[in-house]
Amino acid sequence: MLSVAPENHEKIKLAAWVKGIDRSALQEMLSVTSRQGITSFALGLPAPEFFPTEAFAGAVERALRMDYRALQYGPPFAPLKSHVTSLSAKRGVECKEQEVFLTTGAQQGMSLIARLLLNTGGQVLIEEYAYTGFQQVLLPYQPQRLTVPTDPATGIDTDAVQAILAAGNRPAFIYIVTEGHNPLGVSLSAEKRRRLAELSRHYNVPIIEDDAYGFLHYEGEPPAPIRALAPDHVFYIGSFSKILAPALRVGWMVVPERFIPMLSIIKEAADIDTCTFAQRSISAYLDDYSLDEHLNMLRREYRRRRDTMLSSMERHFPAEAQWQRPTSGVFIWVELPEEIDTNELLYTAVKSEQVAYIPGLAFCSKELSRSVNCMRLNFSNPGPDAIKAGIARLSRVLKGVPAYSSASRSSD
Amino acid sequence: MLSVAPENHEKIKLAAWVKGIDRSALQEMLSVTSRQGITSFALGLPAPEFFPTEAFAGAVERALRMDYRALQYGPPFAPLKSHVTSLSAKRGVECKEQEVFLTTGAQQGMSLIARLLLNTGGQVLIEEYAYTGFQQVLLPYQPQRLTVPTDPATGIDTDAVQAILAAGNRPAFIYIVTEGHNPLGVSLSAEKRRRLAELSRHYNVPIIEDDAYGFLHYEGEPPAPIRALAPDHVFYIGSFSKILAPALRVGWMVVPERFIPMLSIIKEAADIDTCTFAQRSISAYLDDYSLDEHLNMLRREYRRRRDTMLSSMERHFPAEAQWQRPTSGVFIWVELPEEIDTNELLYTAVKSEQVAYIPGLAFCSKELSRSVNCMRLNFSNPGPDAIKAGIARLSRVLKGVPAYSSASRSSD
Repeated sequence: MLSVAPENHEKIKLAAWVKGIDRSALQEMLSVTSRQGITSFALGLPAPEFFPTEAFAGAVERALRMDYRALQYGPPFAPLKSHVTSLSAKRGVECKEQEVFLTTGAQQGMSLIARLLLNTGGQVLIEEYAYTGFQQVLLPYQPQRLTVPTDPATGIDTDAVQAILAAGNRPAFIYIVTEGHNPLGVSLSAEKRRRLAELSRHYNVPIIEDDAYGFLHYEGEPPAPIRALAPDHVFYIGSFSKILAPALRVGWMVVPERFIPMLSIIKEAADIDTCTFAQRSISAYLDDYSLDEHLNMLRREYRRRRDTMLSSMERHFPAEAQWQRPTSGVFIWVELPEEIDTNELLYTAVKSEQVAYIPGLAFCSKELSRSVNCMRLNFSNPGPDAIKAGIARLSRVLKGVPAYSSASRSSD
Repeated sequence: MLSVAPENHEKIKLAAWVKGIDRSALQEMLSVTSRQGITSFALGLPAPEFFPTEAFAGAVERALRMDYRALQYGPPFAPLKSHVTSLSAKRGVECKEQEVFLTTGAQQGMSLIARLLLNTGGQVLIEEYAYTGFQQVLLPYQPQRLTVPTDPATGIDTDAVQAILAAGNRPAFIYIVTEGHNPLGVSLSAEKRRRLAELSRHYNVPIIEDDAYGFLHYEGEPPAPIRALAPDHVFYIGSFSKILAPALRVGWMVVPERFIPMLSIIKEAADIDTCTFAQRSISAYLDDYSLDEHLNMLRREYRRRRDTMLSSMERHFPAEAQWQRPTSGVFIWVELPEEIDTNELLYTAVKSEQVAYIPGLAFCSKELSRSVNCMRLNFSNPGPDAIKAGIARLSRVLKGVPAYSSASRSSD
């Protein structure tokens, strides 16, 4: 009988990169904000009251009745790919079904592309503020981050991108949210899109274009995604999570066709198939219902929530607070005076005023002192009344902070 | 305007490991065998006629009606975790809910554990024949494989495992299918399980125990999985794919509790949540139906198919062919005379006799000449009549090969 040292089991060796991980800020937040009575502006959740639950239930039933293969392993469901090409065309992304790759949500798309393009220790080009989920994808690769400035009003600094590439760097990819940036809320001008497409093609550096919020625009049709300008260089990512329902975990990519076989192998290793049952149910839903109508409703309702939040902020927030009016997406980025630490403030906000947000620091792709005074607010999940009350409560927290001795936009 | 060289887009750089990948053998097979008229013994598909489709449709409807959060992002569904602890206990795996981690199928479990434990270029201990999906998980890590012999009748050579570890190697993990091995069909003796548990604890090398087929046993209750003997060292993997339906993409792991927070972060980067909609639907199904009854039916039907295949092989296959009688799982491994190349033979089998299998070479974790004469046959997917007819046709192909000039077990 072989001996086992006491507490020996504590010594199982983990991969080297794991030492750097901790529980994610978003996970912490999910557990805090799911408590009863908290008004949460924290996560980017869609509003569940707008899920087409009844219509979808009917679609599920049809999908199960229609074909005994609905519960079997299976190749990507061709009719859903066909729906995706029509949907993409509405975003200005013209593509063939052979360029569509179905994924277990947009998040998986990012994870698969990183596997395809990135070596451990390789270079990536990323904005100074970026979606936390994408940064989590990068972690195991321990990449060298080429970080470029990004402005809440205009987005990524394309001159800085050019300078980095002109200096000879060839990152594995550039990660961009063109429309309704997470966390900044900004959408890129047509000129910046053109510029990024040009840089990508000239330097042969692919772009990962995360368009998860692309259908949620509130001021008329935005310019087309970068994919429309550089189809051979862009890995475009879309999702049903924000426009139908996140629990289905179905997203898609539009990529140059030659990468599909490699992505299929990477996908097979990750989870074999995208939930066939969800694929067929979504497809059956899209067969019978107009997504246009549903999207128009979502835009109308989310626009109303955005405007409610903006006017509540205008009314209650201290005069020094700054923010933009987002034309797409579900987030408003707020900059407070430098003395304010939004990480510390969150504790008070949740405890005294039952209101939550995500501190700016959570999104920093490198540690920036200026991010300490920022916060991201979501306006898609809480209803208008909750937004009004929550912003009033949040402003009480802000005003309790010494930096805001007295000044505010209006008496409160 | 920046210039773009013609055909420049061909030069996007991929990650170094990608050069080694090709379309997977199983993918090729899926596309070949899904053609009309092919009797496929190739993939490990469950029989769709046994899916509890109607009961499940009712469960989905209840799940959607019960709670508006059924379509929202959400933490792992606690009632499903509770069902999983009861289910695991039936396999002899006693665990707390805090040790259960829900995954997007068993495949994702493997992928997440590799991320947690394996460094690029690190060592892994694996049998000479192993599940292709696990080998695909390993590919990007370009690991050093410590390959041990495995016997179709008795499974992994535990002396070889001990020799490798005693020599000072400390692989990131040992990968094992205890019950109904894929591809060999073999189940490990209680003695081998005990030995592996002991080695794992003594040398502090964790075991990934893939129990995807564990509930499909045909000769009475098998010994408990290794997890029961070394709970601090085993990452146990289970799945609803083979016992309920694969299209749901829900599996689970039972792991030492301290690894759950790290696995949660790795999982979040992979696909955020396991399809909440599928989690809740499965949970609703398990609330109302006895899985025991369903499992008994599956065991009865699959046992019948196994016996049909074995007796058809006995009747038709050439005398030199060798195989075992699997007590669990869905596969029979066949060894033919050394002169026979099952890769070449497959082409004839599909073209002339409309019957498919997977050549042994597809499962080799290192190139072994002896595997060229092996094939894996699945008995869970085709019905008894298709099995009889398919085995008769396959034996015609085998007998057309020069090595089998005349001999056969019975006249045909």
